[in-house]
Amino acid sequence: MADLTPLFQPKAIAIVGASNKPDKVGHIIVKNVINHGFTGKIYPINPKEQEIAGLPCYNSLLQVPDKIDLAIITVPAKACLDVMEDCGKVGIKHAVVISAGFKEVGSEGLELEKKLLFTCKKYGIRMVGPNCVGVMDTNTPLNATFAAGFPLRGDIAFISQSGAMLISIMDWSKTIGLGFSRVISLGNKADLNEADFIEAIAEDPLTKVVLCYIEDVHNGRHFLDVVSRAAKKKPVIILKSGTSQAGAQAASSHTGALAGSDLAYETAFTQAGIVRARSMTELFDLATCFSYQPLPKGDRVAIVTNAGGPGIVASDIIENTGLSMARFDRETLEALRSYLPAQANIYNPVDVIGDAKADRYAFALEAVLKDPYVDSVVVMVCPTAMTDPKAIAEEVIRLHKKYPDKPVLTAFMGGATLAEGAKRLTEARIPVFTFPEPAISSLAGMVNYVRRSDNTPEGEPIQFDDVDKNAVKAIFYDVIRDRRNVLLGSEAAAVAEAYKISAAPIKLAISPDEAVALAEEIGYPVVLKVASPKIMHKTDVGGVKLDLRNEKEVREAFIEIMENVQRYLPNVIPYGIEVSQMMPRGTELIVGMTRDMQFGPLIAFGLGGIYVNLLKDVSFRLAKGITPGEIATMIAETKAATLLRGYRGDKPADMMSLIDMVARAAQLILDFDEISELDINPVFAYPDGYSALDVKITIEF
Amino acid sequence: MADLTPLFQPKAIAIVGASNKPDKVGHIIVKNVINHGFTGKIYPINPKEQEIAGLPCYNSLLQVPDKIDLAIITVPAKACLDVMEDCGKVGIKHAVVISAGFKEVGSEGLELEKKLLFTCKKYGIRMVGPNCVGVMDTNTPLNATFAAGFPLRGDIAFISQSGAMLISIMDWSKTIGLGFSRVISLGNKADLNEADFIEAIAEDPLTKVVLCYIEDVHNGRHFLDVVSRAAKKKPVIILKSGTSQAGAQAASSHTGALAGSDLAYETAFTQAGIVRARSMTELFDLATCFSYQPLPKGDRVAIVTNAGGPGIVASDIIENTGLSMARFDRETLEALRSYLPAQANIYNPVDVIGDAKADRYAFALEAVLKDPYVDSVVVMVCPTAMTDPKAIAEEVIRLHKKYPDKPVLTAFMGGATLAEGAKRLTEARIPVFTFPEPAISSLAGMVNYVRRSDNTPEGEPIQFDDVDKNAVKAIFYDVIRDRRNVLLGSEAAAVAEAYKISAAPIKLAISPDEAVALAEEIGYPVVLKVASPKIMHKTDVGGVKLDLRNEKEVREAFIEIMENVQRYLPNVIPYGIEVSQMMPRGTELIVGMTRDMQFGPLIAFGLGGIYVNLLKDVSFRLAKGITPGEIATMIAETKAATLLRGYRGDKPADMMSLIDMVARAAQLILDFDEISELDINPVFAYPDGYSALDVKITIEF
Repeated sequence: MADLTPLFQPKAIAIVGASNKPDKVGHIIVKNVINHGFTGKIYPINPKEQEIAGLPCYNSLLQVPDKIDLAIITVPAKACLDVMEDCGKVGIKHAVVISAGFKEVGSEGLELEKKLLFTCKKYGIRMVGPNCVGVMDTNTPLNATFAAGFPLRGDIAFISQSGAMLISIMDWSKTIGLGFSRVISLGNKADLNEADFIEAIAEDPLTKVVLCYIEDVHNGRHFLDVVSRAAKKKPVIILKSGTSQAGAQAASSHTGALAGSDLAYETAFTQAGIVRARSMTELFDLATCFSYQPLPKGDRVAIVTNAGGPGIVASDIIENTGLSMARFDRETLEALRSYLPAQANIYNPVDVIGDAKADRYAFALEAVLKDPYVDSVVVMVCPTAMTDPKAIAEEVIRLHKKYPDKPVLTAFMGGATLAEGAKRLTEARIPVFTFPEPAISSLAGMVNYVRRSDNTPEGEPIQFDDVDKNAVKAIFYDVIRDRRNVLLGSEAAAVAEAYKISAAPIKLAISPDEAVALAEEIGYPVVLKVASPKIMHKTDVGGVKLDLRNEKEVREAFIEIMENVQRYLPNVIPYGIEVSQMMPRGTELIVGMTRDMQFGPLIAFGLGGIYVNLLKDVSFRLAKGITPGEIATMIAETKAATLLRGYRGDKPADMMSLIDMVARAAQLILDFDEISELDINPVFAYPDGYSALDVKITIEF
Repeated sequence: MADLTPLFQPKAIAIVGASNKPDKVGHIIVKNVINHGFTGKIYPINPKEQEIAGLPCYNSLLQVPDKIDLAIITVPAKACLDVMEDCGKVGIKHAVVISAGFKEVGSEGLELEKKLLFTCKKYGIRMVGPNCVGVMDTNTPLNATFAAGFPLRGDIAFISQSGAMLISIMDWSKTIGLGFSRVISLGNKADLNEADFIEAIAEDPLTKVVLCYIEDVHNGRHFLDVVSRAAKKKPVIILKSGTSQAGAQAASSHTGALAGSDLAYETAFTQAGIVRARSMTELFDLATCFSYQPLPKGDRVAIVTNAGGPGIVASDIIENTGLSMARFDRETLEALRSYLPAQANIYNPVDVIGDAKADRYAFALEAVLKDPYVDSVVVMVCPTAMTDPKAIAEEVIRLHKKYPDKPVLTAFMGGATLAEGAKRLTEARIPVFTFPEPAISSLAGMVNYVRRSDNTPEGEPIQFDDVDKNAVKAIFYDVIRDRRNVLLGSEAAAVAEAYKISAAPIKLAISPDEAVALAEEIGYPVVLKVASPKIMHKTDVGGVKLDLRNEKEVREAFIEIMENVQRYLPNVIPYGIEVSQMMPRGTELIVGMTRDMQFGPLIAFGLGGIYVNLLKDVSFRLAKGITPGEIATMIAETKAATLLRGYRGDKPADMMSLIDMVARAAQLILDFDEISELDINPVFAYPDGYSALDVKITIEF
């Protein structure tokens, strides 16, 4: 792991391109560093100036008579290369390149960026940017950016691929009193990227939550390794944009980012334990709750409200977000019954009714905080004539201090009447929202983070050593020699067998007589399928005949298939007809794959059969490092799982054999990068095993 | 339709239970009426007072020497009855009963409420409440509530079943400058309910948008009739809570509401053209956009931004909410290219880049507003050092005035820096949000409203007169005589036939010989199924044998089914075995139903087969008044539709015959209330018709 401390806690910094002109970036940065309290040494560099903002100015880095930890570079793009060379010569190990004019402006800029990165590599310099806003650390304090203003101090780190969004958020954060520890603008991330910063900040004791806005990830596997480990230490919340086709198009005209397929990101984020925000609002709602409150131990939420309607709204959201309404202990119910007026509702949501003053809120809140069956509490306040919001806020603050281990969130539903109470809550780091929805969905985010941390699927990835790689290579070799890239069914079945995936035996017949002979050998009933690499959907052209019970049926089917193919696809001459055993019907499954540029191969599992594209009941995982536990979770996510557990009286399927099959398929696609398509559909699952009926493999170099 | 004008524009009002004690509701109301500018006559009624708030006080309504249009009643619950009697005697036709202590406190209160309603009916008085906050009209102006404060004047009507929520919203609305025309607290809605108010307000020229918070609907069919008509006149936006199980439980301990099944509400709201809000935030975001801006003509959105990242975020949301990114006219692109700097993005999202001042925003905004392929625009601003948010706001306002027919929404992404600009936009009725998400999802709500209005499925409901009701009654009679409520397959098929739903012919055999005889009559291959009202899932007990091709197979199957049933269900003695034709396989569909207490029967259509419960690919409609167009839409919503249109080379199914079948099934369940279950599964759809293979009917009185 790179030590990025000097980026955030430098003792001496140089600002190359510092300026005396007030609207120049090189001026704003010097001002920001000075005005926001940096206590180390500051060396402005500009050959045309003697002094900048009261500091002596140097002609070049080479003339600074001191060891510099961090260079902030704002000179025009073309001058950056020389500056970086100077950095290397004087032993500077960390640089932030603010300057634009690199990858984002096209091929010429990209060349320049590559050269800049090469210079960094030559000297072992770690670079932020280019084309970025800079970095901030509120604890050092250091504001090495050209953003107007400096955020409040806090325990949230924010890493942003969009500089404008970073500036927007810094401006906006003050209106809700949100504080930050470190703020990083990634820019073009030629060298340091989100993974590096997430890894480094996971070790920062002054940061509790890591927030991230990204448009893409360059090295998916590295990202996954690093962030999986970081997410075990502290919550990592990411807003990934460019998820839609439209968004990806927009992204490609911006920062030069190539947004990957959302499926791969979604899968990777889930596997890494990342909390994924769906919108900017959600990103910061989550940040607030994770930062201010302890993690809930479970999903049971208690509501305390002074009005029924909002209580119902809150109950709806609790159920819709996958949380559960706490069911109170008998002691809690008795306490509430004895204290609250008769019209109050003592069951969850606790309705202390409209005339409740702070004492009644306090009693109810303490009762539910004490309850062992409550994991978190949402306090809701409507401004009736009797309500004293400030006193209620004070009681909430007092009781949260008394029971600091359970998260308390609030919805203060109103405007001016409640403003003072809301302000007090924010100061005391109790999240306050106007409406209950964001409070509860943030809580759901916290609960999901805890669930994932608690339930990281166990087990090590399996590495099978009983597979026959050479057999697979030999088959692929024959396929290439035949100038094909689609394997015949019999070939694909042989590949599966080499990896100990049980496929129904398939033999190729080139005449009705041969088909009958093979059928006698395999045993009736049999299936006949046309064999041709040019026919992907054999059923559609009448190329499949099932359940053939005797010689006559096989003979007729052979001829009929040939006639069908001739009619539908007059230009295709089949290799022959494949004869296989008619397997007893089991639960129809599919095992498949897709490859992602960033994250490598993904393995897919779901309901199989001819409607697989229609039903889309498929779950994905990154193939790399997949464990049996993760495969079990993956299977459990599908509707197929309901069938496999034994549906309407059926016997349950043999789950262990299915997990084994998926793990072997995962290893196959990891071992052979050249497999561009693998489609095992259907797989029939039985109580005592499974059978892969139809294996399709395509290879590509 | 009830004329509710006197509730909102009374010339003379009486406040019964008026008081001089400052914390009494009867005092606050008098003050609210006076202080918020009511210009009509006010008569406080209280036998213990001479004068209240400077107005002469009367002992009772009977003594007021004037015609009163509206009585506001705040006396204790038990005294309300006498007051209402007085109202009737002096000819008051409208009353608002603020007093609590009715249905919401239990059976005694419910009795009192019924008596109160009876008195109203006796005199033809229309009542709001009891147990409500009151009503407001900002144009009259009249504040006949005990809420603190009075909302700004505006064109939004707000109807709330929760008084507390109403008070919260009135308080909060001022912080975002949102104005209201009329505000109604429904309370227990013993007499007047949401449907009455929505109907009345649809005619109010000073209201543009109707907002509603409800927990239940009492008379679903009436609600649907009324609101369907209202929603054609102006947008009706509803937040319905109690949708989850938890929420419904909370609702039942509040206002005495019984929250119906969400499926029925969802279906009814869609059919009525209601815009459904999913959260309080969404309710008011939608209200703001519908109130401030014109309706978009289509779904093509243009984005103008000064930063790439937020533009990508916005593109994602546009796609995810079912809107589309506008593709600009060539003229627009040329104009943008000629004016904007080289680094700008001239394609949608238009990125005027970070150093853009107001002139560049104005140019880009005008270019896209003029573009015939743009239906709406979202302007996004990040606060860079060069940004002048106030000037940008002014340009947006100017251009919106110049092109008033296209909605313009804004995301001013920041805090203090942008506050002044945001304030100007709000004053000019241009919605301004901090982040792009709520702007775009509100826009999606508007587009969906327009789509629904434009595409109300055509056609009149069909009333078939070729159905044989008596035949159905005769079958039901036999079933009852047999002390059953589940029809045998052969009986259910006969019911279907009576309604001209093509069911596969089914005959009952009571011996292997008889089964063979029937099979010969029907023609091989045949299906055998056990006949017993006690066996609902026949396949699960081995009670079904398919594709029997000859006498031997039929005979063996008969005995095997009997043996299976004996083994699984030793206590069940089947009526015999049903023999039916083995129909050729078609697309498997299901047609079913459910009944809702509020909205009556719902007809269901979807993918059939044994996995129907697993796949849940089913679409619902209220059976009443369903048109062929609506059925076609319903079918189109399912995945089954993909199959029916011809999947992977199959011929398309005969859609007209399916629509006819669904319409006939709808009529059957409307004609016979006693049908509690109807389940036609599978229906096989063919290119030239369909066949209902298995019809299940249960009746209940």
